[in-house]
Amino acid sequence: MTEKIARFFRDNAPATPCLVVDLDVVAENYAKLNGALPDSKIYYAVKANPAPEILSLLVSMGSSFDTASVQEIQYCLEAGATPDRISFGNTIKKASDIRTAHGLGVDLFAFDSIEELEKIAANAPGARVFCRILTSGEGADWPLSRKFGCEPAMARELLLKAAAMDVVPYGLSFHVGSQQRDVGQWDLALATCAALFRDLEEQGVVLRMVNLGGGFPTRYLKDVPTSQQYGEAINESLRQHFGNRIPETIIEPGRGMVGNAGVIQSEVVLISRKSANDDRRWVYLDIGKFGGLAETMDEAIKYPIVTDRDGDSAEPVIIAGPTCDSADVLYEKADYRLPSSLAIGDRVSILATGAYTTTYSAVNFNGFAPLKAYYI
Amino acid sequence: MTEKIARFFRDNAPATPCLVVDLDVVAENYAKLNGALPDSKIYYAVKANPAPEILSLLVSMGSSFDTASVQEIQYCLEAGATPDRISFGNTIKKASDIRTAHGLGVDLFAFDSIEELEKIAANAPGARVFCRILTSGEGADWPLSRKFGCEPAMARELLLKAAAMDVVPYGLSFHVGSQQRDVGQWDLALATCAALFRDLEEQGVVLRMVNLGGGFPTRYLKDVPTSQQYGEAINESLRQHFGNRIPETIIEPGRGMVGNAGVIQSEVVLISRKSANDDRRWVYLDIGKFGGLAETMDEAIKYPIVTDRDGDSAEPVIIAGPTCDSADVLYEKADYRLPSSLAIGDRVSILATGAYTTTYSAVNFNGFAPLKAYYI
Repeated sequence: MTEKIARFFRDNAPATPCLVVDLDVVAENYAKLNGALPDSKIYYAVKANPAPEILSLLVSMGSSFDTASVQEIQYCLEAGATPDRISFGNTIKKASDIRTAHGLGVDLFAFDSIEELEKIAANAPGARVFCRILTSGEGADWPLSRKFGCEPAMARELLLKAAAMDVVPYGLSFHVGSQQRDVGQWDLALATCAALFRDLEEQGVVLRMVNLGGGFPTRYLKDVPTSQQYGEAINESLRQHFGNRIPETIIEPGRGMVGNAGVIQSEVVLISRKSANDDRRWVYLDIGKFGGLAETMDEAIKYPIVTDRDGDSAEPVIIAGPTCDSADVLYEKADYRLPSSLAIGDRVSILATGAYTTTYSAVNFNGFAPLKAYYI
Repeated sequence: MTEKIARFFRDNAPATPCLVVDLDVVAENYAKLNGALPDSKIYYAVKANPAPEILSLLVSMGSSFDTASVQEIQYCLEAGATPDRISFGNTIKKASDIRTAHGLGVDLFAFDSIEELEKIAANAPGARVFCRILTSGEGADWPLSRKFGCEPAMARELLLKAAAMDVVPYGLSFHVGSQQRDVGQWDLALATCAALFRDLEEQGVVLRMVNLGGGFPTRYLKDVPTSQQYGEAINESLRQHFGNRIPETIIEPGRGMVGNAGVIQSEVVLISRKSANDDRRWVYLDIGKFGGLAETMDEAIKYPIVTDRDGDSAEPVIIAGPTCDSADVLYEKADYRLPSSLAIGDRVSILATGAYTTTYSAVNFNGFAPLKAYYI
């Protein structure tokens, strides 16, 4: 927790649960990613946290933006981004949304199927398009399904077809999986991209860009490599696979840009046992899976939790949310420990919660309001 | 789908995704449950769907209400329920919320630990309290964790302690698990309750009430027993275990009250394959896990999906939502089939979606608005 966030909590004692994001940390993350990959353009993944304060800051620092919907495009425009800095990166778009985005000046669109490509050609004529390819996602904490992307052989066919349509076949994209802790995962995908670049060039289609996606992690309980280490590994892979013809590259950090900038404070509502000889206490917080911590699904993301009593002896606990839903348990299998002296009414801080919390929050589940957030 | 809902969609063609709830079906469900268990009071589980139209209807029919938060209590009061018809059924409550609820006139509170009991005695002096006991949850489609309830031996100790505090030890509650298709599950819990009643009476503590909880299912893909069958099984268990001293009983239907009253319409955004020889098509809808279908988590709840082309030959599909989240896949393991003729832009109807959809919906994930709903 930064001193600025700690002071905010001390001075304001805001009602819980709430998230506080330190914009200085976001700026620092941007600078580090920019320094680690100086030849890549940064497209911030707006879905991680679309707060206007974050978008305005990143506009001022020169960032571009990866968006998932027309609404997110509008957030970026309202924050001062010009449309040439916006990518419509969702591979699943309604025809009407493509048309609206193109009308707003957006010129860069993702696809992974002939059906989507045809929609783009019909509704955003002349736009640049990039095709997303499937990767394995090994080494990522957040599950990567086969939902996005197509097999490389199909990408080749689609980009050849794109060349005959009213769009510009501009590049390839991939995603190594969110919270990817293995820097080598980019290498596998880049080898595939380079082979496709060569193959397509032989067919007369010259691609310009590789979108390296996101996946840059936040430090939760486990250590993660630095931005510098990611940058070096990716640059080395680019040199190895593309030689002296390295294409334009873009990256789409979301979690890596804002995750560690936020801290949620929550109140302990109840601490109890299920029987006299229960070996673990249940600690119930006033935030849970439906109040912003959806990424605790299957205990995928393990947030560090700190308390004012952390020097005291600790004991194993099960941590759950405040709703009447039996699925609203945060951590039962992960070996969380909290101070034995922790008491009902105490506040706990849930660290590294700047990404994928506010907007995941349920609109009104059990009558609880969505997560309140402060950007300082 | 009822004729009334079908007509609404035909006449209004509302923007998708949206939920339409037929209030006549809610009224019918109330009447059926009331008829099946005439000696039980119905406490509608507000969390299933807190729409004012539903609450007002149920107030007018004589229902009482099971609430999870102060906000839900206020919804019930605004709909015209008197506080004596409201139970604060969440076992995890802030002291300040207990005080507020008691101040509003609520007099019936759940607990499952000494810590919660002490909070109630301090903040709602004189209130009636009931202790929730743990059950196995076998046979339920939605997972039942050990989050709520305590072991029966602990419940005994807690109710003895309650008798010495400024509260009225009023009864016991249990929950057999949501979407419980085995009517026999109530019998096991009732046997435990009856034993506790006898044991406590010998200690001088006379309990009055058994809260039979919820669990009454909605028909999704599989057939479920009728309200009448649940009623008969529960009445038989009550007679068997309590003899001629059957206590007051209350039930807390949520899903069983509103689930089958609602239909979501969604637009097909994309249909595609991942490779030329992919054996299943991906069908992407404009609603997903974060837009109201959270209960598809681990494919727990399997909603029937119907289309206008249902006569045509069908083929296996994977069904996913519209967000840029790889976890936003609805059905991949379940063997869903949709017509081969289904096309991008078609509307599909997702049945039995009246419960646990609107309020689960994320407030703004990927820039998408929460689920819009109509009550007719």
